[in-house]
Amino acid sequence: MVNIAIMGHGIVGSGVVEVLRHNCESITKRAGDSINIKYILDLRDFPDSPLVDFFVKDFAVIERDPEVKIVVECMGGLRPAYDFVKRCLLSGKSVVTSNKELIAKKGCELLAIAKEKNLNLLFEASVGGGIPIIRPIVQCLAANEISDIVGILNGTTNFILTKMVKEAMPFDEALAMAQRLGYAERDPSADIDGVDACRKIAILTSLAFGKHVDPDLVYTEGITGITLTDVAYAAKWGGVIKLIGRVRRFSDDRVMPTVYPAFIPGYSQLSTVDDVFNAIMVRGDAIGDVMFYGRGAGKLPTASAVVADVVDCVKHIKARKYLFWEESEPGYIKDHATAFGEMFVRAAVTDYEGALSWLSDRFHVVRVLSDPGDELAVILTGVEGEIKSALLGDAPLEVKNLIHVVD
Amino acid sequence: MVNIAIMGHGIVGSGVVEVLRHNCESITKRAGDSINIKYILDLRDFPDSPLVDFFVKDFAVIERDPEVKIVVECMGGLRPAYDFVKRCLLSGKSVVTSNKELIAKKGCELLAIAKEKNLNLLFEASVGGGIPIIRPIVQCLAANEISDIVGILNGTTNFILTKMVKEAMPFDEALAMAQRLGYAERDPSADIDGVDACRKIAILTSLAFGKHVDPDLVYTEGITGITLTDVAYAAKWGGVIKLIGRVRRFSDDRVMPTVYPAFIPGYSQLSTVDDVFNAIMVRGDAIGDVMFYGRGAGKLPTASAVVADVVDCVKHIKARKYLFWEESEPGYIKDHATAFGEMFVRAAVTDYEGALSWLSDRFHVVRVLSDPGDELAVILTGVEGEIKSALLGDAPLEVKNLIHVVD
Repeated sequence: MVNIAIMGHGIVGSGVVEVLRHNCESITKRAGDSINIKYILDLRDFPDSPLVDFFVKDFAVIERDPEVKIVVECMGGLRPAYDFVKRCLLSGKSVVTSNKELIAKKGCELLAIAKEKNLNLLFEASVGGGIPIIRPIVQCLAANEISDIVGILNGTTNFILTKMVKEAMPFDEALAMAQRLGYAERDPSADIDGVDACRKIAILTSLAFGKHVDPDLVYTEGITGITLTDVAYAAKWGGVIKLIGRVRRFSDDRVMPTVYPAFIPGYSQLSTVDDVFNAIMVRGDAIGDVMFYGRGAGKLPTASAVVADVVDCVKHIKARKYLFWEESEPGYIKDHATAFGEMFVRAAVTDYEGALSWLSDRFHVVRVLSDPGDELAVILTGVEGEIKSALLGDAPLEVKNLIHVVD
Repeated sequence: MVNIAIMGHGIVGSGVVEVLRHNCESITKRAGDSINIKYILDLRDFPDSPLVDFFVKDFAVIERDPEVKIVVECMGGLRPAYDFVKRCLLSGKSVVTSNKELIAKKGCELLAIAKEKNLNLLFEASVGGGIPIIRPIVQCLAANEISDIVGILNGTTNFILTKMVKEAMPFDEALAMAQRLGYAERDPSADIDGVDACRKIAILTSLAFGKHVDPDLVYTEGITGITLTDVAYAAKWGGVIKLIGRVRRFSDDRVMPTVYPAFIPGYSQLSTVDDVFNAIMVRGDAIGDVMFYGRGAGKLPTASAVVADVVDCVKHIKARKYLFWEESEPGYIKDHATAFGEMFVRAAVTDYEGALSWLSDRFHVVRVLSDPGDELAVILTGVEGEIKSALLGDAPLEVKNLIHVVD
């Protein structure tokens, strides 16, 4: 029997209890040992829970109990999760967490402690919810040099954009619906400003390329500036707008992780990933493109990924899994402004033909999407920083929106 | 240093050598040890190969060399692969194979020997080529009860059907093109008759539900009967025709593995999996639907899956991975004829309205796709065996095609 403690009895934590109890028999068979929940840490009272006797409020009870071999952290946030997880590792307990903020910010330090102590720190649920992605990337890595990762990493924004694309529902209305359905928080900023997707692409970048990427250094745009007009132009172009977390590795081994809404062509598998679903496309030199798709959030999908990690910990109680990255050197992240590619530009103009010539003189205009009038909409090719500075200078047009194109 | 032998220097075998040599540095880092190719077994001569000194023609050289810890089998077919793999395991060597026929037919026996000898027998490349699917299923299984698996498991037939659907290219022409491009063999029967997909769904069923399913017991239809007329009706219905490997588990724990062309609705992620790509959708009780997508065949994708298994073997040289299934009892496979669901029926009729009433009297007609005339095309709901026997009896219509509908 392996004793575990679960920290946090919110949505994910209670889901973990539910999955462990509901699929107890098959989990025991797979793990090769029974898993016993010895403690649940939560500051709140749950007098009606059938597990009422297992609740504790003091973390030190778990920390000091040598019988607890694995601690599951489902509290979320950096404080006190960071302190608790570190102390768990230092006191010889393996840790499973669903906490993307924790891994994105502190993964490098915590993984080093786990390595030093010969313990496991697993975090499959931190990216893509229930979708197996962390292990498949490690597995792909075993025989591939990965060059690109592109993913729809946030279900809330994907739900909102799907409503805008499929039902021409305005942003505010779609957000309100997401909140009513429980897909978005009352304060939706972590989702709609791209913060959540940013943490996830930081984790994937750190893992895939072996060096830590601080989420604060990831160029991040949210979706609040996307309008139904932009959505209509994307449709005319032959695609949809999705919030994309993306990382590219360059030949000098530097990486460019970004989060932004982007035009995605209709032929891309990512273009049909709708509603709250997530998908992550990984490109390797031998394997080509592989994609992983599923529910990126939700109580049971996320809990199922956590429980799979717990089972893996039980099976590898004395052997470490290969999950590790090092500190990165300054300059490791390549400035997104140096990226060459396509961008969608929508601008108010007084002289339509004049503005179009002005753009054509400076950049390669791939396609004009607007009809002559007081709004010009085109797809340009150029260096991102140069496009932006030209448009913000004395251009004969007033930019309404500037959206990346990802193919 | 870990010594390995590679049996077979065809497309996959030579790809394994290429990936091992090309990504040598990162593979050594991941495996934690260097991997040395000590022998390559092939009856042919490769005088110009840089590895010419490693070639052997006698299997016994590999079998008797105690320095060889891992043997990679890329010969394909049952004979002599079955005999060689068994002897490798019996002489204490772990085995990695890409051979779907071998695992589908003999997996149960070989896995039992591997377990007995505390060795690994890994076969990620046998299903889905480079797509990580075997491990993710085992991982999903750790916390989920899987109920369904549906997959596009054969790239050749998917290429042919994509040409028929997207370009209205007749079957024969699409097949000829697939052969010209090297996607189909000169004798294409293993692909177009569904045999290849059948072996793969047999492996997935055995793995996901823990009991061996002989591919000979899987109900299998190929795609040779699919016409452009059927494709057009599928489009009118709102979907496409795909060759589907599918298994469902019932509440009595019996399973129904099948391979057949099917109508897939346009909203399904599987409907946009085109050309030679494969995708496998897995449904679990906690995780919901997850899908894995990528190149299901080809030299480097398949080789990359084989090499990832080799790396895993090196890392677990003394610890077994959890891949196992037992013999199944008679009656474990539920007869597909008892399945209740939708079917597309296309038939020649002399009395259109009369034939439609006749069908409506016996089954639930969900939708009529034809216009009145000498051909009737409908979607019916009923028990598969009952639909088939009624239509083959004294029905006032002559069936031209009968195609499953999968949602």
